[in-house]
Amino acid sequence: MHCGPIRMWLSCGSPFPCGCHRQCRCWMVVWRGGLVPDLLPSKEGKGLTRCFLLQIVDILLHYIKKTFDVKSKILDFHHPHQLLEGLDGFNLELSDLPESLEQLLVDCTDTLKYGVKTGHPRYFNQLSSGLDVIGLAGEWLTATANTNMFTYEIAPVFTVMETVLLKKMYGIIGWREIEADGIFSPGGSISNLYGILVARYKRYPEIKTKGMAALPCIVLFVSEHGHYSVKKAAAILGIGIDNVIEVKCDERGKMIPAELEKNILQAKRKGQTPFCVSATAGSTVYGAFDPLHDIANICEKHKLWMHVDAAWGGGLLLSRNYSYKLSGIERANSVTWNPHKLMGVPLQCSAILIREKGLLEACNQMQAGYLFQPDKFYNVDFDTGDKTIQCGRHVDVFKLWLMWKAKGTCGFEAEINRYMELAKYFYKVLKKKDNFKLVFDAEPEFTNVCFWYFPPRLNLIPEGFERDQELQKIAPKIKAQMIVEGTAMISYQPCGDKVNFFRMVFSNPATRQTDVDYLIDEIERIGKDL
Amino acid sequence: MHCGPIRMWLSCGSPFPCGCHRQCRCWMVVWRGGLVPDLLPSKEGKGLTRCFLLQIVDILLHYIKKTFDVKSKILDFHHPHQLLEGLDGFNLELSDLPESLEQLLVDCTDTLKYGVKTGHPRYFNQLSSGLDVIGLAGEWLTATANTNMFTYEIAPVFTVMETVLLKKMYGIIGWREIEADGIFSPGGSISNLYGILVARYKRYPEIKTKGMAALPCIVLFVSEHGHYSVKKAAAILGIGIDNVIEVKCDERGKMIPAELEKNILQAKRKGQTPFCVSATAGSTVYGAFDPLHDIANICEKHKLWMHVDAAWGGGLLLSRNYSYKLSGIERANSVTWNPHKLMGVPLQCSAILIREKGLLEACNQMQAGYLFQPDKFYNVDFDTGDKTIQCGRHVDVFKLWLMWKAKGTCGFEAEINRYMELAKYFYKVLKKKDNFKLVFDAEPEFTNVCFWYFPPRLNLIPEGFERDQELQKIAPKIKAQMIVEGTAMISYQPCGDKVNFFRMVFSNPATRQTDVDYLIDEIERIGKDL
Repeated sequence: MHCGPIRMWLSCGSPFPCGCHRQCRCWMVVWRGGLVPDLLPSKEGKGLTRCFLLQIVDILLHYIKKTFDVKSKILDFHHPHQLLEGLDGFNLELSDLPESLEQLLVDCTDTLKYGVKTGHPRYFNQLSSGLDVIGLAGEWLTATANTNMFTYEIAPVFTVMETVLLKKMYGIIGWREIEADGIFSPGGSISNLYGILVARYKRYPEIKTKGMAALPCIVLFVSEHGHYSVKKAAAILGIGIDNVIEVKCDERGKMIPAELEKNILQAKRKGQTPFCVSATAGSTVYGAFDPLHDIANICEKHKLWMHVDAAWGGGLLLSRNYSYKLSGIERANSVTWNPHKLMGVPLQCSAILIREKGLLEACNQMQAGYLFQPDKFYNVDFDTGDKTIQCGRHVDVFKLWLMWKAKGTCGFEAEINRYMELAKYFYKVLKKKDNFKLVFDAEPEFTNVCFWYFPPRLNLIPEGFERDQELQKIAPKIKAQMIVEGTAMISYQPCGDKVNFFRMVFSNPATRQTDVDYLIDEIERIGKDL
Repeated sequence: MHCGPIRMWLSCGSPFPCGCHRQCRCWMVVWRGGLVPDLLPSKEGKGLTRCFLLQIVDILLHYIKKTFDVKSKILDFHHPHQLLEGLDGFNLELSDLPESLEQLLVDCTDTLKYGVKTGHPRYFNQLSSGLDVIGLAGEWLTATANTNMFTYEIAPVFTVMETVLLKKMYGIIGWREIEADGIFSPGGSISNLYGILVARYKRYPEIKTKGMAALPCIVLFVSEHGHYSVKKAAAILGIGIDNVIEVKCDERGKMIPAELEKNILQAKRKGQTPFCVSATAGSTVYGAFDPLHDIANICEKHKLWMHVDAAWGGGLLLSRNYSYKLSGIERANSVTWNPHKLMGVPLQCSAILIREKGLLEACNQMQAGYLFQPDKFYNVDFDTGDKTIQCGRHVDVFKLWLMWKAKGTCGFEAEINRYMELAKYFYKVLKKKDNFKLVFDAEPEFTNVCFWYFPPRLNLIPEGFERDQELQKIAPKIKAQMIVEGTAMISYQPCGDKVNFFRMVFSNPATRQTDVDYLIDEIERIGKDL
């Protein structure tokens, strides 16, 4: 590999001991005592470090350009065994001896080459998609600062930024700063776990010392369309999945309040002790919003903790047009909100917000003497690390802060409104197409649009079990072909009595209407002969 | 702010619509519908994106250079209220309207300016320190790829890399690949939680569905010097802190096997059910290694799960000179190992390793239909996301993989051996100094060296309570002064009956012997008149 365009060399601006102008010589790193000797912190390493990192950046910039190029493939698919066996000099095995910097650059290129461009305009595969350039810059800076959120001492700016962001989020939910608390966590599942953990602690503070043995049989409620992480949390917390009661939903996937109340009363009759309801604001598959006011009324009546999993839907609070869909969230006791989903922040960025100051700390603190010394010379209220279930904690706030600076609240709002419009457009186009069938024949609630594609031959089979058996295979086949060709990525799943259907979702800032049209054509192209 | 050195502009190599040569004009971003209009994915955004990201990189490269410059300050300390109120145009508040790109660059510069240079040669504050340039490049790439570890589908290279790294780690521990399993998690505390979670599930698989109500009163054991995350995990898991039994240590902080056995028998007599021992390989403060073979013998005898928290000490396995200190780890059922500590990988990077295939998945899987479709066209064994307690999971493996390629196992070994030598050197120098007193008058076990500094006036006070009262205040005062001057950072804490002492620790690749000498002089300089 050559050292890249000459302008990159010039931009390094540093004379190498080995002479940069003689090209690749400086990359011929010699094995000396196990270190790559010429990068920093080596005394002589400044020039090579700069040059190496600029080469990396060149690879990344090239990748970014391709990511946003609608004509480039989203991925160059290979099977796991192919990657394991090694592809064209891309060997994943690790050895005792070092590789050259030159080889590392090739490895970086290959890592991206065989990966998935999650920022591609036609990547619709997950609730988190897109690549925000400002957020990306934030991540690069975060990586370079390489610090840890546990104390103000070593992360002064980031810990204070976290409080600023949390305050902003409380305000948007409709909470007063004085009553609210929160923390950023490694993802929505962990945030949901926090919600239930704190709910349990609030009701039974003795849980922390004595464990579940001191408690009655506690149960919690979540809709049948709620995220699986609620059950996962119950398993981890020692509550048990059997004690998560699934509440029935209406046909659009919203929890039915009357069913919730029925379930609560049933549980009480059985001698179980309800303590928490986890409502959903933006369900994963249907994008449904539970009726939060009705649920809040029931929670108040039965004195239950109300958690709202707004991991996906939380961002909608930023839209003056659509925030009404989360009306009632201000009455929740805790809220999960993932800026890495609808707000497009790079992975990962998730917050758990609690409407009671001090509870998070009381629940989790262990006062480790080696970290949280009380005799520090600054205000140790900013040593927030003892609120968490972690010790070390990655800095997930800076990218969000920088994006908020770059876009303003209005910028997020405009983008989110655009996704909602795209979802409506997609729905309208599909409605007119004979070979597509919408899971719900009504305007989308959120940016999720669920649908089946029917190849012509399936229209000849009468509705019923046999046709469903065939239909079940269609989405996986279409998706497999899309992946092999690298043209688009979209999710599918079965749900309840519904066989495999596609879930389109809009959260990718690169997506334009033409990409939506393309996807429809692509499904028809691949699917018509299946 | 001007657009930076002209060579940077040349390196952009892209003609701007607004004309790059006319300088700053292209930064005057106009508010149009809430978006920063000229960055990607805007059609016209390629040039500005490249230029903006190169400007960011220029800021980061400047920071990296300063980080490694021993003459630069580690930090420019300000109190939390000062940051909150805003400093010289650095305003953390978020508004409805966007800032210009120009302002964002200033904000990035300020964020670094008021932060802590954790890679500085004289930063000794945490077990994780230093800034590895290759690891950093890995993080930049990870951020750019911006994907999620839950499925092979969207993270093909990274999920396979994870299996390659885990395999390597099993081998180093001494496990056969066929029997072992593991996953990377968000930090050592979560990894320890995994160990205990899986231990509980192995003994009582009904926990997952029925919760703790179906179990007897289970108890686990950890040394009094074990990490606080073991207790935290017990609180979260619903076991309760009271059911974590602290085992006495010898004077160096190693668990006493006879005490462990005594505690186990006592618990059984009380009707409690021991199920797990968490041994420590490299304790946080003293750097102590529990006697793993003795503990393994006891675990085998009493049929207890043996977890080893080698978050800090795990890296020592890579040193042929010192790996004997972890002898017996191969007999553990689970191991926590944080490459972000001794191995110098950027934060965060932690693995939980389990010596039983399938257990992690059985314990945690929920088979969410929308993610883990069984009808995919590739080998879904690589969809490892259902093993975790998370859903989305940050890519923490690439930086480690890239560093391993760059250094080889031998490179890690050489670096770790150097830290051990530095610790010995530090110990020897302190031993000769009258005003320093070592907590242990023997060669360091690990790279931790604990010591007090006695200002001359304290030598006039006879040993005892009064002197201890004074000594307790010395380390915080010295540290506060170091922080204010930005000259060095080192941790202190009290421990048991010992008043505040410094904990020196070596894990920073930039540290040289001269920095060690400097630290000693600095403590004397600040402390002599206290």
